Amino acid sequence: MNRQQLVAQIRLKQSYLCVGLDTDLSKIPAHLQHAPDAIFAFNKAIIDATKDLCVAYKINTAFYEAMGLAGWQAMEKTVNYIPKDILTIADAKRGDIGNTSTQYGKAFFEAFHFDAITVAPYMGADSVKPFLVYKDKWTILLGLTSNEGAKDFELQQMGGEKLYEKVLRTAAGWDTNDNLMFVIGATQASEFENIRKIVPHHFLLVPGVGAQGGSLKEISEKAMNKDVGLLVNASRAIIYASGAADFAEAARKVAKEYQAEMAGYLK
Amino acid sequence: MNRQQLVAQIRLKQSYLCVGLDTDLSKIPAHLQHAPDAIFAFNKAIIDATKDLCVAYKINTAFYEAMGLAGWQAMEKTVNYIPKDILTIADAKRGDIGNTSTQYGKAFFEAFHFDAITVAPYMGADSVKPFLVYKDKWTILLGLTSNEGAKDFELQQMGGEKLYEKVLRTAAGWDTNDNLMFVIGATQASEFENIRKIVPHHFLLVPGVGAQGGSLKEISEKAMNKDVGLLVNASRAIIYASGAADFAEAARKVAKEYQAEMAGYLK
Repeated sequence: MNRQQLVAQIRLKQSYLCVGLDTDLSKIPAHLQHAPDAIFAFNKAIIDATKDLCVAYKINTAFYEAMGLAGWQAMEKTVNYIPKDILTIADAKRGDIGNTSTQYGKAFFEAFHFDAITVAPYMGADSVKPFLVYKDKWTILLGLTSNEGAKDFELQQMGGEKLYEKVLRTAAGWDTNDNLMFVIGATQASEFENIRKIVPHHFLLVPGVGAQGGSLKEISEKAMNKDVGLLVNASRAIIYASGAADFAEAARKVAKEYQAEMAGYLK
Repeated sequence: MNRQQLVAQIRLKQSYLCVGLDTDLSKIPAHLQHAPDAIFAFNKAIIDATKDLCVAYKINTAFYEAMGLAGWQAMEKTVNYIPKDILTIADAKRGDIGNTSTQYGKAFFEAFHFDAITVAPYMGADSVKPFLVYKDKWTILLGLTSNEGAKDFELQQMGGEKLYEKVLRTAAGWDTNDNLMFVIGATQASEFENIRKIVPHHFLLVPGVGAQGGSLKEISEKAMNKDVGLLVNASRAIIYASGAADFAEAARKVAKEYQAEMAGYLK
Protein backbone atom coordinates (compact mmCIF):
# COMPACT_ATOMS: atom_id res chain seq x y z
CA MET A 1 0.00 0.00 0.00
CA ASN A 2 1.58 3.28 -1.08
CA ARG A 3 1.21 6.70 0.54
CA GLN A 4 -1.53 7.86 -1.78
CA GLN A 5 -3.59 4.74 -1.10
CA LEU A 6 -3.06 5.04 2.65
CA VAL A 7 -4.16 8.69 2.69
CA ALA A 8 -7.23 7.76 0.61
CA GLN A 9 -8.19 5.07 3.13
CA ILE A 10 -7.82 7.54 6.00
CA ARG A 11 -10.11 10.05 4.24
CA LEU A 12 -12.62 7.35 3.32
CA LYS A 13 -12.87 5.81 6.78
CA GLN A 14 -12.38 9.12 8.62
CA SER A 15 -9.89 7.29 10.77
CA TYR A 16 -6.14 7.06 11.33
CA LEU A 17 -6.52 4.32 13.88
CA CYS A 18 -4.12 1.39 14.01
CA VAL A 19 -5.26 -1.56 16.11
CA GLY A 20 -2.43 -3.39 17.84
CA LEU A 21 -2.82 -7.15 17.92
CA ASP A 22 -0.58 -7.80 20.97
CA THR A 23 -2.44 -11.01 21.55
CA ASP A 24 -1.45 -12.87 24.71
CA LEU A 25 -2.97 -16.29 25.36
CA SER A 26 -3.16 -15.57 29.10
CA LYS A 27 -5.26 -12.44 28.52
CA ILE A 28 -7.85 -13.56 26.01
CA PRO A 29 -11.33 -14.56 27.25
CA ALA A 30 -11.43 -17.86 29.14
CA HIS A 31 -13.87 -19.49 26.73
CA LEU A 32 -11.31 -19.12 23.91
CA GLN A 33 -8.14 -20.06 25.78
CA HIS A 34 -8.48 -23.77 25.21
CA ALA A 35 -9.91 -23.56 21.70
CA PRO A 36 -7.75 -24.97 18.94
CA ASP A 37 -6.11 -22.03 17.17
CA ALA A 38 -7.17 -19.72 20.01
CA ILE A 39 -4.93 -16.81 19.02
CA PHE A 40 -6.17 -16.72 15.45
CA ALA A 41 -9.79 -17.16 16.57
CA PHE A 42 -9.37 -14.15 18.88
CA ASN A 43 -7.65 -12.03 16.20
CA LYS A 44 -10.25 -12.94 13.59
CA ALA A 45 -13.05 -11.79 15.88
CA ILE A 46 -11.22 -8.51 16.64
CA ILE A 47 -10.54 -7.89 12.94
CA ASP A 48 -14.15 -8.60 11.97
CA ALA A 49 -15.33 -6.19 14.66
CA THR A 50 -12.95 -3.32 13.84
CA LYS A 51 -11.96 -3.48 10.17
CA ASP A 52 -14.29 -0.68 9.07
CA LEU A 53 -12.96 1.61 11.82
CA CYS A 54 -9.19 1.37 11.37
CA VAL A 55 -6.69 1.74 8.52
CA ALA A 56 -3.91 -0.44 9.94
CA TYR A 57 -3.26 -3.46 12.13
CA LYS A 58 0.03 -3.70 14.01
CA ILE A 59 1.12 -7.20 14.93
CA ASN A 60 3.61 -7.21 17.76
CA THR A 61 5.81 -10.15 16.78
CA ALA A 62 7.07 -10.74 20.34
CA PHE A 63 3.71 -12.05 21.47
CA TYR A 64 3.67 -14.59 18.64
CA GLU A 65 7.33 -15.61 18.98
CA ALA A 66 6.71 -16.31 22.66
CA MET A 67 4.41 -19.16 21.61
CA GLY A 68 7.02 -20.82 19.41
CA LEU A 69 6.03 -22.35 16.07
CA ALA A 70 2.32 -22.23 16.87
CA GLY A 71 2.69 -18.48 17.34
CA TRP A 72 4.25 -17.99 13.90
CA GLN A 73 1.45 -20.03 12.37
CA ALA A 74 -1.14 -17.83 14.09
CA MET A 75 0.70 -14.73 12.87
CA GLU A 76 0.73 -15.96 9.28
CA LYS A 77 -2.98 -16.74 9.35
CA THR A 78 -3.70 -13.34 10.89
CA VAL A 79 -1.74 -11.36 8.29
CA ASN A 80 -3.42 -13.27 5.49
CA TYR A 81 -6.86 -12.67 7.00
CA ILE A 82 -6.54 -8.87 7.14
CA PRO A 83 -8.30 -7.19 4.15
CA LYS A 84 -5.87 -5.94 1.48
CA ASP A 85 -6.97 -2.32 1.81
CA ILE A 86 -5.72 -2.20 5.42
CA LEU A 87 -2.01 -1.66 6.16
CA THR A 88 -0.32 -4.58 7.96
CA ILE A 89 2.59 -3.65 10.22
CA ALA A 90 5.05 -6.14 11.71
CA ASP A 91 6.09 -4.46 14.96
CA ALA A 92 9.34 -6.39 15.03
CA LYS A 93 11.98 -3.72 15.77
CA ARG A 94 14.60 -5.54 13.70
CA GLY A 95 17.95 -4.18 12.51
CA ASP A 96 21.36 -5.76 11.90
CA ILE A 97 24.36 -5.52 9.55
CA GLY A 98 23.28 -5.11 5.92
CA ASN A 99 23.64 -8.75 4.94
CA THR A 100 21.37 -9.72 7.84
CA SER A 101 18.83 -6.89 7.53
CA THR A 102 18.32 -8.13 3.96
CA GLN A 103 17.23 -11.46 5.44
CA TYR A 104 14.79 -9.70 7.79
CA GLY A 105 13.36 -7.83 4.80
CA LYS A 106 12.79 -11.17 3.09
CA ALA A 107 11.24 -12.61 6.25
CA PHE A 108 8.61 -9.94 6.76
CA PHE A 109 7.98 -8.65 3.23
CA GLU A 110 8.27 -11.94 1.32
CA ALA A 111 7.88 -15.01 3.58
CA PHE A 112 5.11 -13.17 5.42
CA HIS A 113 3.29 -10.57 3.36
CA PHE A 114 3.46 -7.57 5.66
CA ASP A 115 3.19 -4.05 4.22
CA ALA A 116 5.46 -2.52 6.85
CA ILE A 117 8.02 -3.34 9.55
CA THR A 118 9.40 -1.40 12.52
CA VAL A 119 13.21 -1.10 12.56
CA ALA A 120 15.71 -0.05 15.26
CA PRO A 121 18.23 2.66 14.27
CA TYR A 122 21.15 1.97 16.65
CA MET A 123 23.40 0.28 14.06
CA GLY A 124 23.08 3.11 11.54
CA ALA A 125 22.27 3.66 7.87
CA ASP A 126 23.49 0.37 6.42
CA SER A 127 21.31 -1.57 8.88
CA VAL A 128 18.16 0.29 7.76
CA LYS A 129 18.63 0.70 4.00
CA PRO A 130 18.08 -3.00 3.12
CA PHE A 131 14.47 -2.50 4.24
CA LEU A 132 14.07 0.74 2.26
CA VAL A 133 14.94 -0.96 -1.03
CA TYR A 134 11.42 -2.40 -0.94
CA LYS A 135 9.85 0.67 -2.52
CA ASP A 136 6.29 -0.63 -2.28
CA LYS A 137 6.68 -1.47 1.42
CA TRP A 138 7.08 0.76 4.48
CA THR A 139 10.03 0.94 6.85
CA ILE A 140 9.04 2.40 10.22
CA LEU A 141 12.12 3.58 12.11
CA LEU A 142 12.14 3.98 15.90
CA GLY A 143 12.46 7.66 16.73
CA LEU A 144 11.27 8.53 20.22
CA THR A 145 9.60 5.66 22.05
CA SER A 146 6.84 5.81 24.64
CA ASN A 147 8.66 4.06 27.49
CA GLU A 148 10.52 5.40 30.52
CA GLY A 149 13.83 4.18 29.06
CA ALA A 150 13.58 6.76 26.26
CA LYS A 151 15.38 9.03 28.74
CA ASP A 152 18.45 6.81 28.87
CA PHE A 153 19.69 7.41 25.31
CA GLU A 154 17.02 8.72 22.91
CA LEU A 155 16.50 11.99 24.80
CA GLN A 156 20.19 12.56 25.59
CA GLN A 157 22.12 15.27 23.77
CA MET A 158 24.29 14.30 20.79
CA GLY A 159 26.13 17.11 19.03
CA GLY A 160 23.70 19.91 19.85
CA GLU A 161 20.52 17.90 19.44
CA LYS A 162 18.89 14.88 21.04
CA LEU A 163 19.78 11.42 19.77
CA TYR A 164 16.25 10.81 18.47
CA GLU A 165 16.37 14.15 16.62
CA LYS A 166 19.62 13.11 15.00
CA VAL A 167 18.00 9.81 13.98
CA LEU A 168 15.05 11.64 12.39
CA ARG A 169 17.25 14.20 10.66
CA THR A 170 19.67 11.56 9.34
CA ALA A 171 16.93 9.29 8.04
CA ALA A 172 14.98 12.17 6.51
CA GLY A 173 18.08 12.80 4.40
CA TRP A 174 17.61 9.42 2.70
CA ASP A 175 14.90 10.90 0.44
CA THR A 176 12.17 8.50 1.45
CA ASN A 177 9.06 10.48 2.37
CA ASP A 178 6.99 7.84 0.67
CA ASN A 179 8.18 4.60 2.22
CA LEU A 180 9.63 5.65 5.58
CA MET A 181 7.68 6.43 8.75
CA PHE A 182 8.88 7.08 12.31
CA VAL A 183 7.70 5.66 15.62
CA ILE A 184 6.98 8.49 18.07
CA GLY A 185 5.41 7.55 21.41
CA ALA A 186 2.19 9.30 22.36
CA THR A 187 3.54 9.86 25.86
CA GLN A 188 6.09 12.29 24.37
CA ALA A 189 3.53 14.94 23.39
CA SER A 190 5.78 17.84 24.43
CA GLU A 191 8.18 16.89 21.62
CA PHE A 192 5.65 16.71 18.79
CA GLU A 193 5.88 20.30 17.54
CA ASN A 194 9.63 20.00 17.44
CA ILE A 195 9.38 16.69 15.60
CA ARG A 196 7.24 18.25 12.90
CA LYS A 197 9.95 20.86 12.34
CA ILE A 198 12.42 18.05 11.54
CA VAL A 199 10.10 15.74 9.59
CA PRO A 200 7.13 17.82 8.39
CA HIS A 201 6.02 15.39 5.68
CA HIS A 202 6.64 11.88 6.99
CA PHE A 203 3.99 9.67 8.48
CA LEU A 204 4.37 8.99 12.20
CA LEU A 205 3.26 5.75 13.85
CA VAL A 206 2.18 6.76 17.35
CA PRO A 207 1.78 4.06 19.98
CA GLY A 208 1.09 4.76 23.64
CA VAL A 209 -2.47 6.06 23.50
CA GLY A 210 -4.77 4.15 25.83
CA ALA A 211 -3.06 1.84 28.32
CA GLN A 212 0.12 3.95 28.31
CA GLY A 213 -1.74 7.25 28.78
CA GLY A 214 -0.97 9.41 25.72
CA SER A 215 -3.57 11.99 24.57
CA LEU A 216 -5.11 11.57 21.12
CA LYS A 217 -6.29 15.16 21.13
CA GLU A 218 -2.87 16.65 21.87
CA ILE A 219 -1.08 14.48 19.29
CA SER A 220 -3.64 15.24 16.59
CA GLU A 221 -3.47 18.98 17.21
CA LYS A 222 0.31 19.09 17.24
CA ALA A 223 1.35 16.56 14.62
CA MET A 224 -1.25 16.28 11.84
CA ASN A 225 0.00 17.44 8.44
CA LYS A 226 -1.78 18.03 5.11
CA ASP A 227 -1.78 14.29 4.32
CA VAL A 228 -2.83 13.61 7.95
CA GLY A 229 0.59 11.97 8.47
CA LEU A 230 -0.46 10.02 11.55
CA LEU A 231 -1.30 6.45 12.43
CA VAL A 232 -2.29 6.30 16.08
CA ASN A 233 -2.10 2.85 17.61
CA ALA A 234 -4.07 1.43 20.52
CA SER A 235 -3.57 -2.18 21.52
CA ARG A 236 -4.63 -3.27 24.99
CA ALA A 237 -7.30 -0.56 25.32
CA ILE A 238 -9.13 -2.09 22.36
CA ILE A 239 -8.40 -5.81 22.28
CA TYR A 240 -8.81 -6.33 26.02
CA ALA A 241 -11.73 -3.89 26.47
CA SER A 242 -13.66 -6.84 27.87
CA GLY A 243 -12.34 -10.15 29.14
CA ALA A 244 -15.69 -11.86 28.67
CA ALA A 245 -17.62 -13.38 25.77
CA ASP A 246 -18.51 -9.88 24.51
CA PHE A 247 -14.84 -8.99 23.89
CA ALA A 248 -15.31 -8.29 20.16
CA GLU A 249 -18.30 -6.00 20.70
CA ALA A 250 -16.42 -4.23 23.48
CA ALA A 251 -13.39 -3.82 21.20
CA ARG A 252 -15.62 -2.36 18.50
CA LYS A 253 -17.12 0.09 20.95
CA VAL A 254 -13.70 1.45 21.99
CA ALA A 255 -12.44 1.50 18.38
CA LYS A 256 -15.59 3.39 17.39
CA GLU A 257 -14.89 5.99 20.09
CA TYR A 258 -11.38 6.53 18.77
CA GLN A 259 -12.65 6.73 15.17
CA ALA A 260 -15.35 9.24 16.06
CA GLU A 261 -12.84 11.42 17.89
CA MET A 262 -10.46 11.19 14.92
CA ALA A 263 -13.22 12.16 12.49
CA GLY A 264 -13.58 15.36 14.50
CA TYR A 265 -9.88 16.20 14.17
CA LEU A 266 -9.94 15.42 10.43
CA LYS A 267 -12.46 18.20 9.75
CA MET B 1 25.37 -22.07 31.40
CA ASN B 2 26.79 -19.71 34.02
CA ARG B 3 30.04 -17.74 33.88
CA GLN B 4 32.06 -20.29 35.82
CA GLN B 5 30.94 -23.11 33.52
CA LEU B 6 31.67 -21.05 30.42
CA VAL B 7 35.18 -20.19 31.61
CA ALA B 8 35.79 -23.86 32.44
CA GLN B 9 34.78 -24.88 28.92
CA ILE B 10 37.11 -22.29 27.42
CA ARG B 11 40.04 -23.61 29.52
CA LEU B 12 39.18 -27.22 28.72
CA LYS B 13 38.87 -26.77 24.95
CA GLN B 14 41.57 -24.09 24.76
CA SER B 15 39.15 -22.12 22.63
CA TYR B 16 36.91 -19.07 22.84
CA LEU B 17 35.52 -19.64 19.39
CA CYS B 18 31.85 -19.08 18.61
CA VAL B 19 30.65 -20.53 15.32
CA GLY B 20 27.94 -18.47 13.64
CA LEU B 21 25.21 -20.51 11.98
CA ASP B 22 24.07 -17.85 9.49
CA THR B 23 22.74 -20.59 7.29
CA ASP B 24 21.38 -19.43 3.93
CA LEU B 25 19.72 -21.97 1.66
CA SER B 26 21.19 -20.29 -1.43
CA LYS B 27 24.75 -20.69 -0.10
CA ILE B 28 24.85 -24.26 1.14
CA PRO B 29 26.32 -26.97 -1.11
CA ALA B 30 24.19 -27.86 -4.12
CA HIS B 31 23.81 -31.51 -3.15
CA LEU B 32 22.03 -30.44 0.05
CA GLN B 33 19.85 -27.65 -1.29
CA HIS B 34 17.01 -29.89 -2.34
CA ALA B 35 17.25 -32.34 0.54
CA PRO B 36 14.30 -32.42 2.90
CA ASP B 37 15.27 -30.44 5.98
CA ALA B 38 18.31 -29.03 4.16
CA ILE B 39 19.09 -26.29 6.69
CA PHE B 40 19.11 -28.66 9.65
CA ALA B 41 21.11 -31.25 7.69
CA PHE B 42 23.73 -28.59 6.94
CA ASN B 43 23.82 -27.30 10.53
CA LYS B 44 24.05 -30.82 11.94
CA ALA B 45 27.07 -31.57 9.77
CA ILE B 46 28.75 -28.28 10.79
CA ILE B 47 28.05 -28.92 14.49
CA ASP B 48 29.37 -32.49 14.31
CA ALA B 49 32.53 -31.20 12.61
CA THR B 50 33.25 -28.32 14.99
CA LYS B 51 31.75 -29.06 18.41
CA ASP B 52 35.07 -30.02 20.03
CA LEU B 53 36.68 -26.79 18.77
CA CYS B 54 34.21 -24.13 19.88
CA VAL B 55 32.44 -23.11 23.09
CA ALA B 56 29.42 -21.39 21.55
CA TYR B 57 27.14 -21.43 18.51
CA LYS B 58 25.44 -18.21 17.45
CA ILE B 59 22.26 -18.62 15.47
CA ASN B 60 21.41 -15.55 13.46
CA THR B 61 17.63 -15.61 13.63
CA ALA B 62 17.17 -13.47 10.48
CA PHE B 63 18.35 -16.29 8.24
CA TYR B 64 15.75 -18.62 9.74
CA GLU B 65 12.90 -16.10 9.82
CA ALA B 66 13.50 -15.45 6.10
CA MET B 67 12.36 -19.01 5.43
CA GLY B 68 9.07 -18.62 7.27
CA LEU B 69 7.74 -21.45 9.43
CA ALA B 70 10.16 -24.01 7.97
CA GLY B 71 13.00 -21.77 9.14
CA TRP B 72 11.74 -21.69 12.72
CA GLN B 73 11.43 -25.45 12.68
CA ALA B 74 15.03 -25.75 11.47
CA MET B 75 16.14 -23.34 14.21
CA GLU B 76 14.38 -25.33 16.90
CA LYS B 77 15.94 -28.59 15.74
CA THR B 78 19.36 -26.94 15.58
CA VAL B 79 19.23 -25.49 19.11
CA ASN B 80 18.09 -28.82 20.48
CA TYR B 81 20.89 -30.65 18.67
CA ILE B 82 23.72 -28.54 20.12
CA PRO B 83 25.41 -30.33 23.06
CA LYS B 84 24.44 -28.91 26.47
CA ASP B 85 28.00 -27.91 27.39
CA ILE B 86 28.12 -25.44 24.49
CA LEU B 87 26.55 -21.97 24.82
CA THR B 88 23.67 -21.31 22.42
CA ILE B 89 23.19 -17.69 21.39
CA ALA B 90 20.13 -16.32 19.59
CA ASP B 91 21.53 -13.42 17.59
CA ALA B 92 18.14 -11.76 17.46
CA LYS B 93 18.88 -8.11 18.42
CA ARG B 94 15.50 -7.76 20.09
CA GLY B 95 14.37 -4.95 22.42
CA ASP B 96 11.01 -3.26 23.05
CA ILE B 97 8.96 -1.73 25.88
CA GLY B 98 9.12 -3.83 29.04
CA ASN B 99 5.84 -5.67 28.54
CA THR B 100 7.02 -6.75 25.07
CA SER B 101 10.65 -7.52 25.95
CA THR B 102 9.21 -9.92 28.52
CA GLN B 103 7.55 -11.77 25.64
CA TYR B 104 10.85 -11.90 23.73
CA GLY B 105 12.51 -13.34 26.82
CA LYS B 106 9.85 -16.05 26.91
CA ALA B 107 10.29 -16.69 23.18
CA PHE B 108 14.02 -17.31 23.24
CA PHE B 109 14.63 -18.59 26.77
CA GLU B 110 11.47 -20.67 27.21
CA ALA B 111 9.77 -21.52 23.89
CA PHE B 112 13.23 -22.11 22.40
CA HIS B 113 15.89 -23.11 24.89
CA PHE B 114 18.63 -20.65 24.08
CA ASP B 115 21.25 -19.80 26.72
CA ALA B 116 21.68 -16.24 25.45
CA ILE B 117 20.16 -13.53 23.27
CA THR B 118 21.51 -10.35 21.70
CA VAL B 119 19.54 -7.21 22.59
CA ALA B 120 19.49 -3.66 21.13
CA PRO B 121 19.94 -0.79 23.62
CA TYR B 122 18.23 2.13 21.85
CA MET B 123 15.04 2.05 23.97
CA GLY B 124 16.94 2.14 27.29
CA ALA B 125 17.01 0.30 30.60
CA ASP B 126 13.42 -0.88 30.83
CA SER B 127 13.70 -2.53 27.40
CA VAL B 128 16.74 -4.57 28.48
CA LYS B 129 15.98 -5.51 32.08
CA PRO B 130 13.21 -8.03 31.27
CA PHE B 131 15.94 -10.19 29.70
CA LEU B 132 18.29 -9.77 32.67
CA VAL B 133 15.75 -11.18 35.13
CA TYR B 134 16.67 -14.61 33.71
CA LYS B 135 19.66 -15.02 36.01
CA ASP B 136 20.76 -18.35 34.53
CA LYS B 137 20.66 -16.96 30.99
CA TRP B 138 22.83 -14.37 29.23
CA THR B 139 21.76 -11.01 27.82
CA ILE B 140 24.22 -9.76 25.19
CA LEU B 141 23.75 -6.04 24.63
CA LEU B 142 24.86 -4.30 21.43
CA GLY B 143 27.76 -1.99 22.23
CA LEU B 144 29.87 -1.12 19.19
CA THR B 145 28.98 -3.06 16.06
CA SER B 146 31.25 -4.12 13.21
CA ASN B 147 29.44 -2.38 10.36
CA GLU B 148 30.05 0.93 8.59
CA GLY B 149 26.85 2.36 10.12
CA ALA B 150 28.44 2.27 13.59
CA LYS B 151 29.72 5.75 12.68
CA ASP B 152 26.21 7.16 12.33
CA PHE B 153 25.20 7.00 15.99
CA GLU B 154 27.27 4.55 18.10
CA LEU B 155 30.53 6.45 17.61
CA GLN B 156 29.00 9.92 17.93
CA GLN B 157 29.62 12.00 21.05
CA MET B 158 26.96 12.04 23.77
CA GLY B 159 27.73 14.13 26.84
CA GLY B 160 31.52 13.85 26.70
CA GLU B 161 31.70 10.24 25.59
CA LYS B 162 30.61 8.20 22.62
CA LEU B 163 27.10 6.74 22.55
CA TYR B 164 28.40 3.17 22.73
CA GLU B 165 30.56 4.10 25.74
CA LYS B 166 27.50 5.51 27.45
CA VAL B 167 25.64 2.28 26.70
CA LEU B 168 28.45 0.18 28.22
CA ARG B 169 28.81 2.44 31.27
CA THR B 170 25.06 2.56 31.89
CA ALA B 171 24.58 -1.18 31.56
CA ALA B 172 27.65 -1.97 33.65
CA GLY B 173 25.88 -0.09 36.45
CA TRP B 174 23.14 -2.70 36.52
CA ASP B 175 25.37 -5.05 38.55
CA THR B 176 25.30 -7.91 36.10
CA ASN B 177 28.87 -9.07 35.41
CA ASP B 178 27.64 -12.62 35.43
CA ASN B 179 24.73 -12.59 33.01
CA LEU B 180 25.42 -9.62 30.75
CA MET B 181 27.85 -9.50 27.82
CA PHE B 182 28.42 -6.85 25.17
CA VAL B 183 28.70 -7.13 21.39
CA ILE B 184 31.86 -5.38 20.17
CA GLY B 185 32.75 -5.72 16.50
CA ALA B 186 36.21 -7.06 15.66
CA THR B 187 36.61 -4.34 13.05
CA GLN B 188 36.71 -1.78 15.88
CA ALA B 189 40.08 -2.92 17.28
CA SER B 190 41.26 0.63 17.99
CA GLU B 191 38.52 0.96 20.62
CA PHE B 192 39.24 -2.25 22.54
CA GLU B 193 41.67 -0.87 25.15
CA ASN B 194 39.23 1.90 25.91
CA ILE B 195 36.38 -0.60 26.17
CA ARG B 196 38.28 -2.64 28.76
CA LYS B 197 38.62 0.51 30.89
CA ILE B 198 34.83 0.81 30.99
CA VAL B 199 33.94 -2.89 31.31
CA PRO B 200 37.04 -4.73 32.57
CA HIS B 201 35.20 -7.81 33.80
CA HIS B 202 32.36 -8.45 31.36
CA PHE B 203 32.47 -11.00 28.58
CA LEU B 204 32.51 -9.53 25.07
CA LEU B 205 30.98 -11.27 22.07
CA VAL B 206 33.14 -10.25 19.12
CA PRO B 207 31.81 -10.79 15.59
CA GLY B 208 33.54 -9.54 12.47
CA VAL B 209 36.61 -11.82 12.35
CA GLY B 210 36.93 -13.59 9.01
CA ALA B 211 34.65 -12.33 6.23
CA GLN B 212 34.47 -8.83 7.77
CA GLY B 213 38.26 -8.57 8.27
CA GLY B 214 38.84 -8.14 12.04
CA SER B 215 42.11 -9.41 13.55
CA LEU B 216 41.93 -12.22 16.13
CA LYS B 217 45.45 -11.44 17.31
CA GLU B 218 44.80 -7.76 17.97
CA ILE B 219 41.51 -8.40 19.77
CA SER B 220 43.00 -11.12 21.94
CA GLU B 221 45.98 -8.99 22.94
CA LYS B 222 43.89 -5.95 23.75
CA ALA B 223 40.75 -7.37 25.31
CA MET B 224 41.43 -10.65 27.11
CA ASN B 225 40.89 -10.49 30.88
CA LYS B 226 41.66 -12.92 33.69
CA ASP B 227 38.57 -15.03 32.89
CA VAL B 228 39.41 -14.71 29.17
CA GLY B 229 36.27 -12.58 28.78
CA LEU B 230 35.99 -13.11 25.04
CA LEU B 231 33.86 -15.10 22.65
CA VAL B 232 35.09 -14.50 19.12
CA ASN B 233 32.62 -15.35 16.40
CA ALA B 234 33.25 -16.41 12.82
CA SER B 235 30.32 -17.32 10.60
CA ARG B 236 30.82 -17.30 6.83
CA ALA B 237 34.58 -17.98 7.04
CA ILE B 238 33.81 -21.32 8.69
CA ILE B 239 30.46 -22.54 7.43
CA TYR B 240 31.09 -21.61 3.80
CA ALA B 241 34.78 -22.57 3.76
CA SER B 242 33.89 -24.92 0.93
CA GLY B 243 30.79 -24.93 -1.24
CA ALA B 244 31.29 -28.56 -2.22
CA ALA B 245 30.59 -31.96 -0.67
CA ASP B 246 33.59 -31.52 1.68
CA PHE B 247 32.01 -28.45 3.38
CA ALA B 248 32.06 -29.99 6.86
CA GLU B 249 35.70 -31.05 6.67
CA ALA B 250 36.60 -27.62 5.30
CA ALA B 251 34.67 -25.95 8.13
CA ARG B 252 36.53 -28.10 10.67
CA LYS B 253 39.87 -27.15 9.14
CA VAL B 254 39.16 -23.41 9.47
CA ALA B 255 37.71 -23.81 12.99
CA LYS B 256 40.80 -25.79 13.96
CA GLU B 257 43.04 -22.96 12.74
CA TYR B 258 41.11 -20.46 14.88
CA GLN B 259 41.23 -22.79 17.89
CA ALA B 260 44.98 -23.39 17.52
CA GLU B 261 45.63 -19.65 17.30
CA MET B 262 43.43 -19.07 20.36
CA ALA B 263 45.28 -21.76 22.32
CA GLY B 264 48.42 -19.73 21.73
CA TYR B 265 46.86 -16.55 23.15
CA LEU B 266 45.49 -18.45 26.16
CA LYS B 267 48.98 -19.38 27.34
